[in-house]
Amino acid sequence: MRALILAGGSGTRFWPLSRKSRPKQLLALEGERTLLRDTLERLAPVIGPEAVWVCTTEALAEAVRRDLPEVPPEQILSEPEGRNTAPAIAWSVRSMPEAARREVVAVLPADHRMGDPAAFRDALERAARVVEREDRVMTLGVVPRWAETGYGYLELEPVELEPDPSPRDVRRVRRFVEKPSEENARRFLESGNYLWNAGIFLFRGSTLLDLVALHQPELSRGLEAIAAAPGRLRELYGRLPADSIDYAIMEKLDGIATLPLDCGWSDLGSWEALDEILPADSQGNTGRGDTLAVEAGGNLLFADQGTIAVLGVEGLVVVRTGDAVLVMPKARSQEVRKLVAELAARGRGDLL
Amino acid sequence: MRALILAGGSGTRFWPLSRKSRPKQLLALEGERTLLRDTLERLAPVIGPEAVWVCTTEALAEAVRRDLPEVPPEQILSEPEGRNTAPAIAWSVRSMPEAARREVVAVLPADHRMGDPAAFRDALERAARVVEREDRVMTLGVVPRWAETGYGYLELEPVELEPDPSPRDVRRVRRFVEKPSEENARRFLESGNYLWNAGIFLFRGSTLLDLVALHQPELSRGLEAIAAAPGRLRELYGRLPADSIDYAIMEKLDGIATLPLDCGWSDLGSWEALDEILPADSQGNTGRGDTLAVEAGGNLLFADQGTIAVLGVEGLVVVRTGDAVLVMPKARSQEVRKLVAELAARGRGDLL
Repeated sequence: MRALILAGGSGTRFWPLSRKSRPKQLLALEGERTLLRDTLERLAPVIGPEAVWVCTTEALAEAVRRDLPEVPPEQILSEPEGRNTAPAIAWSVRSMPEAARREVVAVLPADHRMGDPAAFRDALERAARVVEREDRVMTLGVVPRWAETGYGYLELEPVELEPDPSPRDVRRVRRFVEKPSEENARRFLESGNYLWNAGIFLFRGSTLLDLVALHQPELSRGLEAIAAAPGRLRELYGRLPADSIDYAIMEKLDGIATLPLDCGWSDLGSWEALDEILPADSQGNTGRGDTLAVEAGGNLLFADQGTIAVLGVEGLVVVRTGDAVLVMPKARSQEVRKLVAELAARGRGDLL
Repeated sequence: MRALILAGGSGTRFWPLSRKSRPKQLLALEGERTLLRDTLERLAPVIGPEAVWVCTTEALAEAVRRDLPEVPPEQILSEPEGRNTAPAIAWSVRSMPEAARREVVAVLPADHRMGDPAAFRDALERAARVVEREDRVMTLGVVPRWAETGYGYLELEPVELEPDPSPRDVRRVRRFVEKPSEENARRFLESGNYLWNAGIFLFRGSTLLDLVALHQPELSRGLEAIAAAPGRLRELYGRLPADSIDYAIMEKLDGIATLPLDCGWSDLGSWEALDEILPADSQGNTGRGDTLAVEAGGNLLFADQGTIAVLGVEGLVVVRTGDAVLVMPKARSQEVRKLVAELAARGRGDLL
């Protein structure tokens, strides 16, 4: 099996800790390792670093190489510019040696958490066996734990309709569902027939490229042009149609299968999401670094540098970096983008 | 007239900005100047720096000298240890040249704010004339603006009992009142017959020393011993009885007079008190430094270094220094000492 880790993201949800030059996948939010490095180490028992490719941006490539010294440098690929996931995945697979492309490739985000890595690896190996045997595209969908409106969903075919040659819990995907309304999200959760789309896919590399040729001929021609003239990468890459892999390929396929993943997955999409997985002290405060809370509970106190001291406050996020402090209610963690937008409007590139 | 500025204080109410090596009088809370330097410049039109003495501690003496370069260095006196205000004032006056001691001396705290310095100087000059003419001890009491329980009060003799040779608003002090209950504080405010004790006194230096000899003979003998053997200052100063000037002298005197002071006085006793005098922006936020507030109002945001960004919070104090962050509700500003005590208990001298 080969892995392709997508590490080109540039989110702002962990501002002021995350910056353009240090996006979420390069942050050590929970322990001492970055999320990217966690992703690599989690794979190691089933996919060693010599079988890992990483797709990132030119701006981040050096940091990625430093963070993953055991991955062969030629397998750390830099997109000249971000064109969404379809070009990133297809170009990365096309860049692999032909022998590797014939194997099963697992596409994985670089910035997710798996609370139970062994369960994750088990699902990954079982899915890989299905891909090998049936040459199907597989996805690992996460068993939903609440009625989330911020994720896409996979709707499954009813079990009884599936003449299933695979392991018992392999299910066929009926369709990809965009972020739902609250009402639909509740319905999805109750039905037991939906999984969260976590952006994890498995396929034979050569099969993926065949599917690209079939469903996205313009993208396919672009990739062949790049392969024929690597010196023109920057020019040609910028012309690839910018679409997500879901939209460009996956939603067009019949017969995608999925294995439900129940392994403490989190996309760590906000400071509040981080708060939920960090251990709390006796006052219900979570955090990192040098912190002091007096008559204060239920706060996330994250001191990347220096000391945070709070008195008499509840339910806050307080983050301290070398140059900035953020204070907001936990429940408004999603809105940190408003601060980032305001800083951008004020020309404060030094803080972004 | 001579001035004696008491600059030995070591408060923790402005932690994390105030530290042992940089107490409140050495902070620039409102503008670019320290409160100590503000005190000196406020006096300048009536008492030039050559007529100013400063009593501070050995630990702060160098910082005080740097802050007040125009004050003759020999007039910046360092107590070997803090023994409260009676020894500090009496020793400082005893240390003045005899000619200076014969003049009116105004004793002033180094860390108060006067919103209207001209009104303050006017009251000071009028009080000095009473001292010169009648050789009385005078105090400037602040016209109370709310029922404060954190200050001492001066109860005044009723006006009709006072055969008054002085300017019309000079009043005799009946007694010094310790910090009152809430009920009494309200009564004091309504009666119009009480002033806040702001620790500002005027007297002839020689008269003060006579009163010390009369009411505090042990202190008086100690001062003479020091004058006779300056080399034994450290040893002898430590034996002086440690009392406040109010308790040791002022409360024992008949005939102390006062002039009411109505000049935007604040003792800046807490972050909340600072918030009250800083100008607010359109969202009701006050502060200093590089700050950003989105959908957040009524906060004090004080960035001594770096940036503070807040979202969706109200009524908070957020302070950022080079090494620490403080977050607490404004209304609990008095309790910052709890954090300081906890840091001390944890051996965090680096933050104190």
